[in-house]
Amino acid sequence: MRHVTELQVRYAETDQMGVVYHAHYLVWCEVGRTDFIRALGMPYAEMERQGIRLAVADATVRYHAGARYDDRIAVETRLVDVRSRMVTFAYRILRRFDEDATELLVSARIALVCTGREGRPASLPPSWRALLDRGVSAD
Amino acid sequence: MRHVTELQVRYAETDQMGVVYHAHYLVWCEVGRTDFIRALGMPYAEMERQGIRLAVADATVRYHAGARYDDRIAVETRLVDVRSRMVTFAYRILRRFDEDATELLVSARIALVCTGREGRPASLPPSWRALLDRGVSAD
Amino acid sequence: MRHVTELQVRYAETDQMGVVYHAHYLVWCEVGRTDFIRALGMPYAEMERQGIRLAVADATVRYHAGARYDDRIAVETRLVDVRSRMVTFAYRILRRFDEDATELLVSARIALVCTGREGRPASLPPSWRALLDRGVSAD
Amino acid sequence: MRHVTELQVRYAETDQMGVVYHAHYLVWCEVGRTDFIRALGMPYAEMERQGIRLAVADATVRYHAGARYDDRIAVETRLVDVRSRMVTFAYRILRRFDEDATELLVSARIALVCTGREGRPASLPPSWRALLDRGVSAD
Repeated sequence: MRHVTELQVRYAETDQMGVVYHAHYLVWCEVGRTDFIRALGMPYAEMERQGIRLAVADATVRYHAGARYDDRIAVETRLVDVRSRMVTFAYRILRRFDEDATELLVSARIALVCTGREGRPASLPPSWRALLDRGVSAD
Repeated sequence: MRHVTELQVRYAETDQMGVVYHAHYLVWCEVGRTDFIRALGMPYAEMERQGIRLAVADATVRYHAGARYDDRIAVETRLVDVRSRMVTFAYRILRRFDEDATELLVSARIALVCTGREGRPASLPPSWRALLDRGVSAD
Repeated sequence: MRHVTELQVRYAETDQMGVVYHAHYLVWCEVGRTDFIRALGMPYAEMERQGIRLAVADATVRYHAGARYDDRIAVETRLVDVRSRMVTFAYRILRRFDEDATELLVSARIALVCTGREGRPASLPPSWRALLDRGVSAD
Repeated sequence: MRHVTELQVRYAETDQMGVVYHAHYLVWCEVGRTDFIRALGMPYAEMERQGIRLAVADATVRYHAGARYDDRIAVETRLVDVRSRMVTFAYRILRRFDEDATELLVSARIALVCTGREGRPASLPPSWRALLDRGVSAD
């Protein structure tokens, strides 16, 4: 399973180099993750209402080329690992041209730890675990 | 009473026009407000721990010139009005040159409404009100 | 003419009050403005390539209620005034519920000044002016 | 050589989890990097005026604990590798308590590629290279 989220670069996301400031790609990954989890059948907002949080524990981001203002972007999200207290997502962020061509801009891998309301690590509730397990794809 | 906060422009705050993206000045006003309130003797973080929040209700911002990366900035904050449920701050954001010269970049006025934890408007507790009243200066 | 842009609240846009941080609504206005100008027939990115820029000169924002994570948002953009060097947009930002109901979150008015590459005020080129004039609606 | 930059958490940097949103730590690393390079004797702004840019190519970030609003933060920056077209910085981001105690929040490693104005990889000019070489410390 691979989920694709489309977005368009906002002016606010550019910096004076004329490309998207590097920290914003992490925001796009989060947007992709939100959509991925919703597609599995549980909005992340609902997880939080139940007291479960996924907090970023580790992020590795490789920058290949810079997105520009108004570019059409595709964020490909995959869930590559689920453990009792940790889930790992992999991302590819692509520029989409008018034709069907794309260019890889960023690849990333983000591990999130499951915590309770107070921020302490906790096991994923069995129902969430089962749901997430269904979304895992080989790396 | 007028409080001056100094900061330096971050690369992340610029946009592809080569100046600071206009929304970030609101963040600097918030930094100035935090410092102003702390100087009065109560960290805003402490207000929130007591269940009181100041939520922005109204902002008017006039942009005169753009801040640039690495500029040294002064945020002048004044408290110009305190009412039972509303406080209003006025700001001047200046570029500081090496010499003592400055250039006005932005002037702003921001009204905040006092709310409880649930977000409903509430009166300022008398002790906060007294503290804030001491900080008011004529507009 | 009134253009509606839809977006969904990102986690990154919330703050510890549990609602969208007030500066981000200016970003949404900019997204609405970009879409509005594109709908008129000229992408703003193209204006910049021709050396014309619209820089925010004045913003007035009134906050009625706070957007929350994952809320579906509608940004209504109208162009309410076009002068030789200045254009003014008006915005209404609404929360969209599942049914057709909406709630007004923010109303704003933003004036932009036309500048050349160096940032000095300049007149709108006649072709842009004509295009923009077609998009004006009474306030 | 190790440079320490101090900053204080802004309200805008928190999210609804009540801690700093994970992407903002990359901004703080950039602030530390700017200060580190200035301490070496060349403001990065000056590098850019000369047509040299350092673009982030690779970032690895490990999150240990979350910074909170108004926390006093120390960003420790070291330069751990300099090559003809690539420089690598290592960071430790710490919470500072009133006493001299600190808590490690984030550790990161960021590689930047040297590019010319058009964004193509380029060798560091010899003078910059010599300056940077003086700042390298063992990893």
